[in-house]
Amino acid sequence: MIRKIVLIGAGNVATHLGQALSGNGREIIQVYSRSAESAASLAQILNCPRTTSLADIRADADLYLFAVNDDALAEVLRQFPHKQALVAHTSGSIPMEVFEAGFQNFAVFYPLQTFSKQSKPDYANIPLCLEANTPANYTLIEKLAQRVSNRVVSANSQQRRQLHLAAVFACNFTNHLYTIAADILEQHQLPFDILRPLISETAAKVQNNLPARVQTGPALRNNQQIIKAHLKALEALPDYQKIYTFITQSIIHSSK
Amino acid sequence: MIRKIVLIGAGNVATHLGQALSGNGREIIQVYSRSAESAASLAQILNCPRTTSLADIRADADLYLFAVNDDALAEVLRQFPHKQALVAHTSGSIPMEVFEAGFQNFAVFYPLQTFSKQSKPDYANIPLCLEANTPANYTLIEKLAQRVSNRVVSANSQQRRQLHLAAVFACNFTNHLYTIAADILEQHQLPFDILRPLISETAAKVQNNLPARVQTGPALRNNQQIIKAHLKALEALPDYQKIYTFITQSIIHSSK
Repeated sequence: MIRKIVLIGAGNVATHLGQALSGNGREIIQVYSRSAESAASLAQILNCPRTTSLADIRADADLYLFAVNDDALAEVLRQFPHKQALVAHTSGSIPMEVFEAGFQNFAVFYPLQTFSKQSKPDYANIPLCLEANTPANYTLIEKLAQRVSNRVVSANSQQRRQLHLAAVFACNFTNHLYTIAADILEQHQLPFDILRPLISETAAKVQNNLPARVQTGPALRNNQQIIKAHLKALEALPDYQKIYTFITQSIIHSSK
Repeated sequence: MIRKIVLIGAGNVATHLGQALSGNGREIIQVYSRSAESAASLAQILNCPRTTSLADIRADADLYLFAVNDDALAEVLRQFPHKQALVAHTSGSIPMEVFEAGFQNFAVFYPLQTFSKQSKPDYANIPLCLEANTPANYTLIEKLAQRVSNRVVSANSQQRRQLHLAAVFACNFTNHLYTIAADILEQHQLPFDILRPLISETAAKVQNNLPARVQTGPALRNNQQIIKAHLKALEALPDYQKIYTFITQSIIHSSK
């Protein structure tokens, strides 16, 4: 049973995960960040000790959970002192084999959600995508995951990579389309607030339907008159014009 | 005061608008559609007479509301018999001047929302964007709009065109990104359901924040390693690869 957890990292993922995992007999016993400020801030939220030195990480945790930047992970793992312990990373895009050089007990604990300082999502509803190097290690992290989420999913590294790619479209890219819409409105003295109900409804519609079934708009109808007028309106915004062109093409191809 | 309304059109917009506008002393007194089936279906929902002949449209309505396809509007207007009456269209992309050939009292009544048979949005929360050819006509449709929505907005034809363009990004294009995500998951035997909480949260985050403030993901961090791996994973899907490329570029440019 996993009771004592050390969090390696103090960014958005570490913060939300740390809050979700602590309590009910489980404890974050230490937080590590190379930034003293981040370490102190998260340690205060979780009411636990912190360190900025990998060498000072406690040896008695049941799980070391790595929520650091993808770019930093390999180097942090290299310097991490407790090679026999159970370790897990939280990244969508890094294969589990990153642990193979040096570790015996390892897993992946990937929350499929977007975390930011501004909002606190409901963890019970967040899919946790798990993978482990042995059935015993899988059971350990599965039990931990089931304590915080109702949507625990097994996904191997290849599936997780695809999940992450799909999430980039459905979340990161979608948010950028919101930004483009906000930018167009701002340039014409219209408030972003006017679009918020539409954004909510667009996301709500696919909660009970597949998105291809509820597609609407000029591209779906292949209404070239509107499409041409929109492309003309975007003439001074070449990045947006390219995005308009290729999403429109893709909608037209998909609907055939 | 507008009490009696004839609906010209029987698609999704006409259906939702008809339901929202009838009741509390206001009545849909007739529905027109060139399709007998659509006319009958909506007339049944609204419990009112219907016709498939423009010549048979009643003369005694206070408002004739046109919710037909953009492509069909000009021809329907040409054949419409009651040129003195107050008429309004519901299109985001057609300028009000479409009425100038032949009509004296005209307006635009544009609901900024996505309508489909599968879902019933809450009308009170839907922005209604209004424009009229005289202050008196504006007041008439404004009073009608305020009976159904708490978000009544004045927008001239130029602003409405920009609103519609912004809505294409925030709704139609966003839904296509969901479709791409669903397609990627399906190709790897993963259910779309796993993405639904992420989609909800992505839309929820911008209800209280501007989207540029809550952008996340590999493009924002300009993580070329992940971006290259994603582009490689999309090699067999050129439409998706182009969309990935140009949204990523735009995010990188925006964050500079």
